[in-house]
Amino acid sequence: MADFIGHAFPGSFFLLFGLWWSVKFPLKHACRKNKKVFYLGSKAGFQRAEIIEGIVKAVCALIGILGEQFIPNGPHLKLYNYKAQEWNHLKNWQHSTMYLFYGLSGVVDILTHATNVPVAFDRLMMSLAEFVEGYLFYFHVHGRAMLVVHIHILLLTAIFGTALCFFLEVFCRGNIVLELLRTSLFILQGSWFWQIGFVLFPPSGGPEWDQNDHNNMMFITMCYCWHYAFALLLLAVNYTVVTWVVRIKMKGAKPMEMELLKTSGQEQESEDEI
Amino acid sequence: MADFIGHAFPGSFFLLFGLWWSVKFPLKHACRKNKKVFYLGSKAGFQRAEIIEGIVKAVCALIGILGEQFIPNGPHLKLYNYKAQEWNHLKNWQHSTMYLFYGLSGVVDILTHATNVPVAFDRLMMSLAEFVEGYLFYFHVHGRAMLVVHIHILLLTAIFGTALCFFLEVFCRGNIVLELLRTSLFILQGSWFWQIGFVLFPPSGGPEWDQNDHNNMMFITMCYCWHYAFALLLLAVNYTVVTWVVRIKMKGAKPMEMELLKTSGQEQESEDEI
Amino acid sequence: MADFIGHAFPGSFFLLFGLWWSVKFPLKHACRKNKKVFYLGSKAGFQRAEIIEGIVKAVCALIGILGEQFIPNGPHLKLYNYKAQEWNHLKNWQHSTMYLFYGLSGVVDILTHATNVPVAFDRLMMSLAEFVEGYLFYFHVHGRAMLVVHIHILLLTAIFGTALCFFLEVFCRGNIVLELLRTSLFILQGSWFWQIGFVLFPPSGGPEWDQNDHNNMMFITMCYCWHYAFALLLLAVNYTVVTWVVRIKMKGAKPMEMELLKTSGQEQESEDEI
Amino acid sequence: MADFIGHAFPGSFFLLFGLWWSVKFPLKHACRKNKKVFYLGSKAGFQRAEIIEGIVKAVCALIGILGEQFIPNGPHLKLYNYKAQEWNHLKNWQHSTMYLFYGLSGVVDILTHATNVPVAFDRLMMSLAEFVEGYLFYFHVHGRAMLVVHIHILLLTAIFGTALCFFLEVFCRGNIVLELLRTSLFILQGSWFWQIGFVLFPPSGGPEWDQNDHNNMMFITMCYCWHYAFALLLLAVNYTVVTWVVRIKMKGAKPMEMELLKTSGQEQESEDEI
Repeated sequence: MADFIGHAFPGSFFLLFGLWWSVKFPLKHACRKNKKVFYLGSKAGFQRAEIIEGIVKAVCALIGILGEQFIPNGPHLKLYNYKAQEWNHLKNWQHSTMYLFYGLSGVVDILTHATNVPVAFDRLMMSLAEFVEGYLFYFHVHGRAMLVVHIHILLLTAIFGTALCFFLEVFCRGNIVLELLRTSLFILQGSWFWQIGFVLFPPSGGPEWDQNDHNNMMFITMCYCWHYAFALLLLAVNYTVVTWVVRIKMKGAKPMEMELLKTSGQEQESEDEI
Repeated sequence: MADFIGHAFPGSFFLLFGLWWSVKFPLKHACRKNKKVFYLGSKAGFQRAEIIEGIVKAVCALIGILGEQFIPNGPHLKLYNYKAQEWNHLKNWQHSTMYLFYGLSGVVDILTHATNVPVAFDRLMMSLAEFVEGYLFYFHVHGRAMLVVHIHILLLTAIFGTALCFFLEVFCRGNIVLELLRTSLFILQGSWFWQIGFVLFPPSGGPEWDQNDHNNMMFITMCYCWHYAFALLLLAVNYTVVTWVVRIKMKGAKPMEMELLKTSGQEQESEDEI
Repeated sequence: MADFIGHAFPGSFFLLFGLWWSVKFPLKHACRKNKKVFYLGSKAGFQRAEIIEGIVKAVCALIGILGEQFIPNGPHLKLYNYKAQEWNHLKNWQHSTMYLFYGLSGVVDILTHATNVPVAFDRLMMSLAEFVEGYLFYFHVHGRAMLVVHIHILLLTAIFGTALCFFLEVFCRGNIVLELLRTSLFILQGSWFWQIGFVLFPPSGGPEWDQNDHNNMMFITMCYCWHYAFALLLLAVNYTVVTWVVRIKMKGAKPMEMELLKTSGQEQESEDEI
Repeated sequence: MADFIGHAFPGSFFLLFGLWWSVKFPLKHACRKNKKVFYLGSKAGFQRAEIIEGIVKAVCALIGILGEQFIPNGPHLKLYNYKAQEWNHLKNWQHSTMYLFYGLSGVVDILTHATNVPVAFDRLMMSLAEFVEGYLFYFHVHGRAMLVVHIHILLLTAIFGTALCFFLEVFCRGNIVLELLRTSLFILQGSWFWQIGFVLFPPSGGPEWDQNDHNNMMFITMCYCWHYAFALLLLAVNYTVVTWVVRIKMKGAKPMEMELLKTSGQEQESEDEI
């Protein structure tokens, strides 16, 4: 939907996942280093978390598709308008297609973690979902005002960056650097969707931006970098808090969990198999 | 050949191979996991399958070359038309060149699996064949109507994506994720060739598409993504069926093949050598 | 600052680091090969060197930011000029943003080497800092004279090349080839900043270059390659001198350090963990 | 030199090396598989071959530089023509710069194989030499006739492809697939230089090509692919002959070299260290 809500909804989706990952991956990393703590919960817990993630992703995508199709002036699943002899609300159909691939990714997440499909497919499918999103965006803004094009092109950096990260994770699964890099790019994408909403459809009803001013373009580029600096800062704070909490818990938990130490070591190995 | 058949033939070629691979790779993966089942057939069988694949590829390429050269208004192997002082049917020659590299790839397939040339060359040669196809396509559509250019540019994504996958397989041979990724891109390429045929040369004789309508371009881009979603779905169905059939067979086969278990384990190792 | 100093300062920053690395990495490599020599100092020494590097980087970035903000006709931290209804000194803000990311990289350097954050993050952060620099530069020169654009585009090769090297080092940490490659690109970037200063703002007050002469562009491209040849030469000289000094020292040091040999071997292993 | 000789000389250089490598790498591969044969000569022989290669490369580069500088209407090492107030024969200087980097690569070859500089630097330096060549070419043809630009752009594919191969070889040294891939690209580059010479400066004095005919461009693109098919064929023939000769020799040599078998195995390991 080409309005504020139409950018705020996907923005919230990406922010939600970005923030959750900024807690999950540091936690996973800390647990891996201190195998004894949280032992009982950790392996099965992360497995369950992945499945829930998949379900949330699929549900969000479904809401997105339904929202795009059934808003008052939406296409209502009709692709071609025979009366007007033209395609019917193509933008909504494009957005639905983007959501569709995230929905597929959610389903693949559930399948890989609940059945014994190779786990690497969840990363591949996310990579494809991001790629398709970027692909559609790339041809989406053809021939519109300079600022509108530029603000979406900037988004493409985050989108294709994320797609690349996910693709690399197919081969280096569990690499904390890649995981946090894509988390930061996800947060960036989410906050940038909100920014686009504010710039192109100011909800306060304020004056619109001059879409052909070169200075606005320069500012927007810089603003994008600030968003990223903010995403990195957020990630650093979450990382620190999570690591610190795990260390506190570890001190309290040490004595009683000593006996679990040996068995945990053996099962750890099987985590990385693809 | 710039007509419906000229797009349907390569489309069928890619679909044929895509569908076959969508059965072969899940089967191979399932057999690797359950070494006992299908043991006797598997190693030698897959070897023979590779050789047959190479032969089919080479024969298809030969048919393609002969078709391009000897259709009524084809070049009949004459490169330069001295009367008209111009190159003779350059498009047919370009298509022949594309087929030629697939033919070479077929020959290399046969050589690597029948003699002891390093097997990695089959992947490299396929990567080069795809790359040459994309390379020729890229310079092929220079200066034609917007929709024609766009519909071929979309194809380039699948082509170069496949080339990249094959190149990565030189280094990560037998990676199920890469194998299925390229299979999906192959199916996409095949079904998209058919789509191009239907759009540019409607066989039903219906009205032609408006080749300069921006909305048609947007629709075509989205349609491409739907083709890919369809290719992924097909792959998922085939994967599920194959895995399920192997599991059924495994249950029945267990007792009598127990004795083959040990020897199979040893020979398995030699498969990955390059 | 769009003047000679504004290019000489970052140029010196890059040259300083480039030259230091052209000594550090050959030294590290030589020490790794001759474990006995410099043993006591080496591990702890390099650790301390990394932290000092981080501090110097952060301080340089801070100086850069303050310089950009508080020069007489700078923005003084004011982003929007409400009187003139326009953004306030956007270029200085862009430069500040570039410095900011190097500052963050400096902080991450300190954190990774002083606490137990995974060390790979220092490489990732440098890669991001370089990428952001290149990203801002890319949109920076839009719509200016041909020579100005070209001279900055050339710089982008070094910048994105360095970003790629650092990113690869996340996965191949301690690879001497990558380390020296990025060192050479850093020196190139530094000396090229000086060159830009001399070409665009001749400090001697000489005649300006004709910014639209095609021959000047061709010369500048070639000149860039010469800078790189010079950077490689410098690297080769430093490499030779350092290796030679280490070998001299080794000969003198051999007898008395023999006893440290065994322990050093064991600790060496832990260096590569991420 | 913008004439036939100026393209034939580098073409011969690339062809020479391409042909030599098309013998060397299959030979090396065959020797590695049949360690006993050619044992005495092989290791030391290949070492010596690398050094001679480096010397030949450096000498060729030197001849190229001298030729570009001291032909009758060359720059004679004078960079700026103060009389005419313009750069002096920039093209010759650019070609000299290209040769310079190949010269540096030759020197690095000699150093890495004669002293104990890490061997991976020879690949890196060749990658840089190719990259610089491509880089200069890319800005070289700016603003000339369509066919001239296109015929050089095609060359860039081979050049950057080779640069990428060499860069990958830094990490996967001794990978036969990469070695033969770059050999084929080298042969392609060499034969294409000759082709450029024949097209742009027909030595027979025949009629020039129409440089703005779209059909000529399409033919040239296809012709480029045929050159590559020819390069692959040549490689295949050489590979077959070499492998066959080694096998013949092996049969004769078997009995008397059996005793060398054990020692050869141990030294083989040290080859891959970087």
